[in-house]
Amino acid sequence: MRLRDLGEWELLRRLAAYAPPGQFDDDAALLNERSDRQLVVNTDVLVEGVHFSDATIGAQDLGWRAAAANLSDLAAMGCTSVVGLTVALVAPSDTTWSWVQGVYDGLSEALRAHGGTLLGGDCSSGSQRLLSITALGRLNVGAAIRRSDGQPGDWLVSTGPHGLSRLGLALLLEELEAGVASGLSQELRARAIQAHRRPRPRLDAVAALHRSQPAGLPWRVGGTDSSDGLAAAAGAIAAASGCGAQLDQPGLPIHPELAQLQQGESWCLGGGEDFELVLALEPAWAEALLGALPGASRIGALVAAKPGHVCWRESGAGLGSDGSGFTHFR
Amino acid sequence: MRLRDLGEWELLRRLAAYAPPGQFDDDAALLNERSDRQLVVNTDVLVEGVHFSDATIGAQDLGWRAAAANLSDLAAMGCTSVVGLTVALVAPSDTTWSWVQGVYDGLSEALRAHGGTLLGGDCSSGSQRLLSITALGRLNVGAAIRRSDGQPGDWLVSTGPHGLSRLGLALLLEELEAGVASGLSQELRARAIQAHRRPRPRLDAVAALHRSQPAGLPWRVGGTDSSDGLAAAAGAIAAASGCGAQLDQPGLPIHPELAQLQQGESWCLGGGEDFELVLALEPAWAEALLGALPGASRIGALVAAKPGHVCWRESGAGLGSDGSGFTHFR
Repeated sequence: MRLRDLGEWELLRRLAAYAPPGQFDDDAALLNERSDRQLVVNTDVLVEGVHFSDATIGAQDLGWRAAAANLSDLAAMGCTSVVGLTVALVAPSDTTWSWVQGVYDGLSEALRAHGGTLLGGDCSSGSQRLLSITALGRLNVGAAIRRSDGQPGDWLVSTGPHGLSRLGLALLLEELEAGVASGLSQELRARAIQAHRRPRPRLDAVAALHRSQPAGLPWRVGGTDSSDGLAAAAGAIAAASGCGAQLDQPGLPIHPELAQLQQGESWCLGGGEDFELVLALEPAWAEALLGALPGASRIGALVAAKPGHVCWRESGAGLGSDGSGFTHFR
Repeated sequence: MRLRDLGEWELLRRLAAYAPPGQFDDDAALLNERSDRQLVVNTDVLVEGVHFSDATIGAQDLGWRAAAANLSDLAAMGCTSVVGLTVALVAPSDTTWSWVQGVYDGLSEALRAHGGTLLGGDCSSGSQRLLSITALGRLNVGAAIRRSDGQPGDWLVSTGPHGLSRLGLALLLEELEAGVASGLSQELRARAIQAHRRPRPRLDAVAALHRSQPAGLPWRVGGTDSSDGLAAAAGAIAAASGCGAQLDQPGLPIHPELAQLQQGESWCLGGGEDFELVLALEPAWAEALLGALPGASRIGALVAAKPGHVCWRESGAGLGSDGSGFTHFR
């Protein structure tokens, strides 16, 4: 049995058996603290040729992006503050210092923008460049966001548009036909490349969630980030919450120009790495959040259905393979 | 400027400039907690061909060793308990599941032996197998072990013998002439291979340190672990404490049989990866600790001298290149 036979999800499932029950179910690990705040820890690894390449991202953007991806997992747990990061750097010995410096410049920039410090790390030679980052953050006790905390009837809310990061990657890789690419507005092209290179972890959306909590309504927020794609995020919340998800096709959080592209809907649903939050909330709270957070939109609802099933509200048809995120080892 | 030109220490020095002052000075990062216990976080990366190879270590021992190396850094900070580990695993897609399973079995075994749980992690394909581990532990507020807390007059104490891990590696690699290897007792050979494959993080020594603290003496413990070698550990404490270190040649913590080998003293001083603690203590506390911790021994003292200078007490001669630990990127 080899890893390529297992695939990433089965590998993770098997690894989770080594941790306490439920420990791997969310985006990061909750630590029980003797304090009024809970500590959250999250580890992500980015490998050259798998997660990044010099062709599409420079060192400084890579550093930002690596930090942002980790901080997005903290936001997806409900963290309102960042403690910091540890960074393990592996690189061949002919790697230039300027590349490493650029990466750490980008990491530092992301920490300055979102709080927290570089806490430590390690480095080693190796055949391939990679970064392994562990992020620590804090949340108020009792105010975590869990994938499993959704209920049928909850609205599904996206904190921002989807598919832009994938479009940015396509532009950088020159995947689109020249006529199609040049037909896009300069504004959208710049925004898509920015979304790919400089994603924003939505810690601000967690703050808005706190601000918009209706009086008398207890904290209950289902959610995850959309690093693996919008449909995968909705499916993950639905599966963990024991229900299904219905998406509104006209309500997809997609830029109007992107919607005109042949790949537009597919990239919106499955492009991944937009690092927005997808949240399941009681309708009253969802409405309050939409008022408090410009750019957020209702994308559908959780419904009583086969756990994890994601379908279109209009037709009832299940989402196709577009809904699957990227998977390693295959 | 390339990494091979910088070397690991210079690279780390440059990376430390991105963290708050002093953050990289110790074995792991102290986090300020609103609690009566401080949280400690540490990240280490182990790369195939650099830190391990199938020729010398099986999957399960590797998992144990990876966890133990991280927990040793927690012990070197004064942690009395382990919260847990996050593990990022990178491996080529033709890696067998049984190898991964063995690694996680070994990790779990080390956690069962020393406390703590697997907290989370990540995995990715990559050209080379590697593990990036972040360990979290706790210590009593005000009871940290810092490299910089030594003073001239302190005794240097080693919690156990040195050079065994390097001897074990030499036996596994068949580096020794056959006659020399076969001349060693079966007991020593087994112990050396065990020291290489199954090092023990000395959390028990931290407990002994607490038990042996003389009444009325405030907490002040200089120290680090000897992962980079005994002489490097003594030098690191001396340098951080602004003084020199004198080692007693007859007091070297070396197995009598190993002392007979040509390489014996060199491996004791610079072999590395014994994962013992090297501590700088007021003589009264040091004596109490030696009584409380079998296997611990006095190896020398801190003295007023050029910061970081390590010499022999008997001759005053400085230690040679044997005192340097392994360095990456060269």
